[in-house]
Amino acid sequence: MSFPTRAFAAQSSSSPLEPWSLERRALGADDVLIDILFCGVCHSDLHQARDEWGGSLFPMVPGHEIVGKVLSVGTGVTKWKVGDTVGVGVFVDSCRACPQCLAGEEQYCDEGMTATYNAQARDGGGLTFGGYSTQIVIQEDYIVSIPEALPLDAAAPLLCAGITTYSPLRYFGVKPGDSVAVVGLGGLGHMGVKFAKAFGAHVTVLSHSPSKREAALAMGADDFIATGDEAVFADNRKKFDLILDTVSADHDLNSYLGLLKINGTMVLVGLPNPSPVSAFSLVGGRRSLAGSMIGGIKETQEMLDFCAEKGIVCDIEVIPMDYINTAYERMLKSDVRYRFVIDLATLKG
Amino acid sequence: MSFPTRAFAAQSSSSPLEPWSLERRALGADDVLIDILFCGVCHSDLHQARDEWGGSLFPMVPGHEIVGKVLSVGTGVTKWKVGDTVGVGVFVDSCRACPQCLAGEEQYCDEGMTATYNAQARDGGGLTFGGYSTQIVIQEDYIVSIPEALPLDAAAPLLCAGITTYSPLRYFGVKPGDSVAVVGLGGLGHMGVKFAKAFGAHVTVLSHSPSKREAALAMGADDFIATGDEAVFADNRKKFDLILDTVSADHDLNSYLGLLKINGTMVLVGLPNPSPVSAFSLVGGRRSLAGSMIGGIKETQEMLDFCAEKGIVCDIEVIPMDYINTAYERMLKSDVRYRFVIDLATLKG
Repeated sequence: MSFPTRAFAAQSSSSPLEPWSLERRALGADDVLIDILFCGVCHSDLHQARDEWGGSLFPMVPGHEIVGKVLSVGTGVTKWKVGDTVGVGVFVDSCRACPQCLAGEEQYCDEGMTATYNAQARDGGGLTFGGYSTQIVIQEDYIVSIPEALPLDAAAPLLCAGITTYSPLRYFGVKPGDSVAVVGLGGLGHMGVKFAKAFGAHVTVLSHSPSKREAALAMGADDFIATGDEAVFADNRKKFDLILDTVSADHDLNSYLGLLKINGTMVLVGLPNPSPVSAFSLVGGRRSLAGSMIGGIKETQEMLDFCAEKGIVCDIEVIPMDYINTAYERMLKSDVRYRFVIDLATLKG
Repeated sequence: MSFPTRAFAAQSSSSPLEPWSLERRALGADDVLIDILFCGVCHSDLHQARDEWGGSLFPMVPGHEIVGKVLSVGTGVTKWKVGDTVGVGVFVDSCRACPQCLAGEEQYCDEGMTATYNAQARDGGGLTFGGYSTQIVIQEDYIVSIPEALPLDAAAPLLCAGITTYSPLRYFGVKPGDSVAVVGLGGLGHMGVKFAKAFGAHVTVLSHSPSKREAALAMGADDFIATGDEAVFADNRKKFDLILDTVSADHDLNSYLGLLKINGTMVLVGLPNPSPVSAFSLVGGRRSLAGSMIGGIKETQEMLDFCAEKGIVCDIEVIPMDYINTAYERMLKSDVRYRFVIDLATLKG
């Protein structure tokens, strides 16, 4: 028995998202059927639906910030039971055998993680379809538990925006007293601010939008620098131990590298186009330009538990499913504070 | 009393190096007068003499890989005595008060280290002049001891080529069993191979010159990859924990970043022109592109002692002072294995 599922899909890179029906796979022994309650809207949904990174697979049902309730479990499932509140993030499978998979860092799987949507399933079952849908079937090891303390809608974007910023701040060792800058105050950036503050850092937001100052300070940033004025790059040299760069729009990386202290690291979590990097920017201060991509299942669970303990959630705007194309247009104008979350009840009707 | 000194100098960016006379400053209380025996020839000598980096100061006496004997000491000198065998590297002064200076990493001084040549002395005494000369006066804290076990000529390039490769291999934690690649087998690269081997790594040389294979293996490399064939970049993905990139000629950094394992680091110690870096190269494997510049006085001494213990020296070709312009032309053709060292006896006549 497979599961008839309502969804919103893009049928091609030039189509808007429209209602579509699909069949979720029959429940394998270690599979879990999840009734989807909320799904966050990530900017990468839009990039992929419009094939801006190349290689998109259609029809496409985006969505990889999924929160729901367990509806049914396979006969061999040991980790989950009916009624559990669970989450699914950016990937739903990996090789399980490479050093990274064995270390719980499946996002860096040697064979490539299997994305929650816009990917071929490893079992040959065809395309994966994401969370803009009423239900989903997931192998039990690729599911996390949503702690009771978290509101379900505002927790959804933690599965991508949250872990994408939590993981590098942890990996690169942000600690109390560190001076951390977050570049960009969008879906990722606002979570970066909250986590860096929770880790005890002095946090500065760098944004080209002076209008975001108040919001940045309100959510805990200690300082705000508007980057529209080029002079700020000369005025703030050697200021930060770590810069978390969440911006995917093109920007001059060398200007930002100059803001790092000696031995500082700038971590890209956005995906700007290739940008010239000057060796002098790095060599003269033993600086590093690094990148980081989401986080593994183990760390995602750790992050969710941390959020529950510290009362950290995303700032969201809940929307009905049929608002999605408008939401995409608003995302393109950065007109969202700071993440759209789809209420899937609106698709169940 | 100041010290009349013979030297070779460039009088302008278009002049060859020619004999010149200068006066070294009178010995301050904490100064040491050094009789220069050998001075290595660094590619940066040529860059600066020809003003290829901009801002060169003339007349210029290059040379920052200096080995000599103490001839005289100031009244307050406590660290050195007449007859000591000593070395001077890339810098001769710094602020002594910033966090880096206090940590013994004077090369990253907040006010900028004072270069051994082509710089203004901090005391207002005018230009600094380097080791293409018969003697030099140096403040005692910016001098290192050359261990007895080391041959004086082959030790000279340790002061720049040696520490420039030793320091990043230490800082980025190369340990037994690591897979390390060294890009470029020149003055820096050949020292990188020796140090990485001494630290217990499996070492691969990447060079565009297939003719260097034999030499690379002879000096201890475990493997050699000729990079002229683009296919090697696809064939060797995710192979190295650390890549030490010693090449200053332009090359595609993304190709090399793809050779790093997950969490790997590529360290630039050369100074290529700004090169486009793809965020995908970094983000998808949590890789880092870093830079490193020489090393501090403390670490330079540690490196020299390590070399004495392990029997590590540079491969050199000793030349007379008046061969320097020919040596520069040969360096431009990479026709040196692997460092020219000037015998200053040839200038004392």
